[in-house]
Amino acid sequence: MASSPPSSASASSSEDATTTSSNGSAPVQFSKYSRRASARSVVGRPDGGLGLAGKRAVVGGWVKSANVVKAKRGGCAMLPPRMTATESETTGLTCTEVLMARVPLIRCIAKLIGGASAVDKASSSVSYKLAPVTALARINDGSCVPDLQIVVDSSLCPLEQVTAIGACVLVEGKIELVEGRSQPHVIELRVDKVLHIGAVDIDKYPLPNVELPPDELIKDYGPQLATTRTTAMASVARVRSEMVHAAHAFFQTNGFFHVNTPIITTTTVAGERRKMFRVMRPTSSKSDNRAITPEVVRASIKAKTKQIQALKRSDSNKEALEAAELDLQRASELAQQLEQQGSADFSDKSFQHPLYLSSDHTLHLETYACALSSVYTFSPAFQAESLETHNHLAERWTIDAELAFAELEDAISCAVDCLMWLLSTVFKNCSDELKFLSTEENNGKFFHVNSALSSPWERITYNEAVNTLLQVKDKSFEGKVELGMPLSLEHMRFAFHGKSIGSYLVDDYYKKPVIIYEYPKQLKPFYARLTEDETKVSAFDIVVPKVGIVACGTQKEERMDKLTARIDDLRLPRDHLEWYLDIRRHGTVKHSGFSMDIEQLILLVTGLNK
Amino acid sequence: MASSPPSSASASSSEDATTTSSNGSAPVQFSKYSRRASARSVVGRPDGGLGLAGKRAVVGGWVKSANVVKAKRGGCAMLPPRMTATESETTGLTCTEVLMARVPLIRCIAKLIGGASAVDKASSSVSYKLAPVTALARINDGSCVPDLQIVVDSSLCPLEQVTAIGACVLVEGKIELVEGRSQPHVIELRVDKVLHIGAVDIDKYPLPNVELPPDELIKDYGPQLATTRTTAMASVARVRSEMVHAAHAFFQTNGFFHVNTPIITTTTVAGERRKMFRVMRPTSSKSDNRAITPEVVRASIKAKTKQIQALKRSDSNKEALEAAELDLQRASELAQQLEQQGSADFSDKSFQHPLYLSSDHTLHLETYACALSSVYTFSPAFQAESLETHNHLAERWTIDAELAFAELEDAISCAVDCLMWLLSTVFKNCSDELKFLSTEENNGKFFHVNSALSSPWERITYNEAVNTLLQVKDKSFEGKVELGMPLSLEHMRFAFHGKSIGSYLVDDYYKKPVIIYEYPKQLKPFYARLTEDETKVSAFDIVVPKVGIVACGTQKEERMDKLTARIDDLRLPRDHLEWYLDIRRHGTVKHSGFSMDIEQLILLVTGLNK
Repeated sequence: MASSPPSSASASSSEDATTTSSNGSAPVQFSKYSRRASARSVVGRPDGGLGLAGKRAVVGGWVKSANVVKAKRGGCAMLPPRMTATESETTGLTCTEVLMARVPLIRCIAKLIGGASAVDKASSSVSYKLAPVTALARINDGSCVPDLQIVVDSSLCPLEQVTAIGACVLVEGKIELVEGRSQPHVIELRVDKVLHIGAVDIDKYPLPNVELPPDELIKDYGPQLATTRTTAMASVARVRSEMVHAAHAFFQTNGFFHVNTPIITTTTVAGERRKMFRVMRPTSSKSDNRAITPEVVRASIKAKTKQIQALKRSDSNKEALEAAELDLQRASELAQQLEQQGSADFSDKSFQHPLYLSSDHTLHLETYACALSSVYTFSPAFQAESLETHNHLAERWTIDAELAFAELEDAISCAVDCLMWLLSTVFKNCSDELKFLSTEENNGKFFHVNSALSSPWERITYNEAVNTLLQVKDKSFEGKVELGMPLSLEHMRFAFHGKSIGSYLVDDYYKKPVIIYEYPKQLKPFYARLTEDETKVSAFDIVVPKVGIVACGTQKEERMDKLTARIDDLRLPRDHLEWYLDIRRHGTVKHSGFSMDIEQLILLVTGLNK
Repeated sequence: MASSPPSSASASSSEDATTTSSNGSAPVQFSKYSRRASARSVVGRPDGGLGLAGKRAVVGGWVKSANVVKAKRGGCAMLPPRMTATESETTGLTCTEVLMARVPLIRCIAKLIGGASAVDKASSSVSYKLAPVTALARINDGSCVPDLQIVVDSSLCPLEQVTAIGACVLVEGKIELVEGRSQPHVIELRVDKVLHIGAVDIDKYPLPNVELPPDELIKDYGPQLATTRTTAMASVARVRSEMVHAAHAFFQTNGFFHVNTPIITTTTVAGERRKMFRVMRPTSSKSDNRAITPEVVRASIKAKTKQIQALKRSDSNKEALEAAELDLQRASELAQQLEQQGSADFSDKSFQHPLYLSSDHTLHLETYACALSSVYTFSPAFQAESLETHNHLAERWTIDAELAFAELEDAISCAVDCLMWLLSTVFKNCSDELKFLSTEENNGKFFHVNSALSSPWERITYNEAVNTLLQVKDKSFEGKVELGMPLSLEHMRFAFHGKSIGSYLVDDYYKKPVIIYEYPKQLKPFYARLTEDETKVSAFDIVVPKVGIVACGTQKEERMDKLTARIDDLRLPRDHLEWYLDIRRHGTVKHSGFSMDIEQLILLVTGLNK
């Protein structure tokens, strides 16, 4: 079955015993479920691979930059005049999918890459004896930030294959120390066996060295070179992965159960229906449009029974008989089902309600919380694109948590702890990535964010926020400042570039994260719990300077009478909400929750937004 | 802000020093972010709460069963004649959402509950001196299988409130030992303070004590009493949560990165388009249908400039002026964007492709694997309901993994290890839940599955499977057994009840899990890698007796020429796949992956399917 893994034993014949430091010649272990050692296990080690010098290894990856060196002809001539990784990274950036092209994250990164990849300049001075013509290629398999330099002699393969930016190579050789600490790397792999080369179609790759808007890049080059073959995009992907793992760890540690709420939903109350995607079933199948009545099925059963009797008489075709019998059996089952349903129309009634893609998981998550106590979900939420703004995601993944026997304070504590946990985990485990993404343009912003988060946060009510704004004289805001106005925080989630009133408050006035709570009820959803005076609700937003809202939450209205009054006030379709009201009708409990947007958190932690 | 947590100090006044064993009177700690100790931290402990006897605690939960005891009138009379939890559980089962009603998992459980909850008979013999009228209620907050018995004196609240099945109670009191080990519980909480009661509308709850099909239950009672207030459904939810956590842990431990592939997609090749949900944007907004050309914007800028000049002259309305200026600024930005795009049509072209809900994450996951090496995703996959079968999920969550520098063997090893990891984690951490779900009907099947999985698995090629079937003489299969036929495995994923050829093979012949590999190419997707003879492909299924396929995987065709030939053979729309082909065009790498259906795994581990 398939080929066997490249045996490291078979390669030991080419092992020359001339080398260096280190213990024994046991080869570097393969990554689990793979045919090579990952870059992370070689150059991604804390020592940069120093401790592996002298060992043999199989490594694979894609060429990020390369030079061909003619040693005998004096110095390091670069041949052919090919683009370096730095150049190709500037342009080798597309997006994962047509929709993704609209993701601000990716757009932000596109702008940043130039700066970010500047730190990645390939250095290629050679410090030992080379074969007549040798290629130095820096490869990376996406598992860590540093590239691994491989040294390939022209006798092993045509060097243009291993020096083409984007080519995939799988090579075997010995890890050697690089002399001279001015090098960006301490080890390199001297290749003695080329196991595989995934060539590059030079006509089509690298992408043209001109700045194209993402739309055109996608149109012309497709999404596949993607996210991820650039160091910056791969770094972001790894940060995102680390954050997702951290989120699950946080909730698991704190006794939350993971649940999945429906993505396709008939409930449109929490979101705005006009901003929700509709879901349609395919209608090509005939049976979709046809009503199957018990009469039709009974007639069919009669016909099939006759057919079977005929087949039995003829006895000519055993297979046909079996097929007919099976057919009959199915028809009988169908008839039974129809009888049980007491319905003459077999078409699924539940599908006659319009279906939507869920834009908010809160309501369904509450049903779980009101039975399992502490639950969370990590799910996609959908919002149909509006043409008015581009700072908007059609699909974004959110972390939503809901806690029973919990009030607003509990949700705030949990959200703050969760945020701290996520950020500190990522800062700890992705320092290479964050350093790489730190550029002049964002001015090492993640470090700034980190320190901002560790200092005490401001806690103010909505009223205090407005009063603060009222005292600002030297600013002209969009709109009039008065109690009851939105702080534009609702729009901040996707609006980084325009300075809203809310962002003035955190960016310029408090200059640290602010928890704003107790909003006027008209600014928050119907399910937020009314405070004593019934004009405000128990809700909060956590707003971080330069980023905007990173978490928002509410204590839910657990009192049936207040909730129904609110639903009626807002003229929401009560019949659509009966299922939701039943949570209050039957054993209601105080419960609170919050929501975080993971794409937003990525912007925060990488400093990629501006 | 909101109310303060119920102080355990304030309750110490009612502490009577008469009691029992145990160290000190420090109250049981609250769960984090909550106003009570969870059931898990009290009765869910390995000692059943024994070590907590004598301590004070605040606990909350929903009443599962209850009795009212009149101690002075000789024995344990049950008043009023109310349903016990056992009865209510038989019927208190609805589904989470209209679509979910069609989930076979839930249907299976509905059948099982009767059996499962039989072990949950409430025992209520009383072993100490009771107040004149006392309620014994067993409550649960969904955090563990065992219920906690609370003892409430009639002086504290109207007892019908705390004895109504489904009511939510939050109470404070002292944990006391229950004498007599015939009791199902070793401790109970003697309540001295009732903090909150979420009453039950007796007219509407519990659900009627007749067997209703899920459709009608949902129609009449809604989805909210859901999944989860029954011990069986809560157990399944906890098992699912544990499995999701285990999956993330497995992949994180093995160096995989978590990614999210697009849910809304234009790519329909991997799935069958006629079985995919279409996604539509809302069309109510006017701007959707209108093309915004640079000309239109320029004209608008001109008009706005004039308006502003007029407003400045009049100087009457500062707000109007500001608004107009902002408007102008936006129009200018828009004009700039249009200029940069060089496009006269502002409507988003990408939306003119039909959009679908992704039914398969493989293709997009490959783009990540071919840059980050080892990746996985846990995402919903969608398939439009077909009327032919009800054993089918419209949305199901799948675990998909893809590995670069990996061949079929690697993917098989990884899938097997992953499966073992998931199952062993769940067996270890959810033994209470699994025991509860173990019924006469499923005959403790999860133990059977556990032992089956730990014995050596069969590994056979597709050809061997067919040859085995050809030698079976005493069975008449659906259809003719011959090389090239599907083993009906494609349909097994959702078809548990009909015995297909494939299920005969594993259920009756091998009687253990079977890994079937090397399929005829026509039975597997276009991207599966051709073997040497080009009639078969490197693909595998892991089939478990009584459950069906729990994992399927392929080594992907990395050779450009073979892949394009296959696409042309199958007449797939090549232009839709150019982005995918680019992975092969530019630095192709051997890569393999697999997919698991988490709902399927839940059926496997809980033994809930038949």
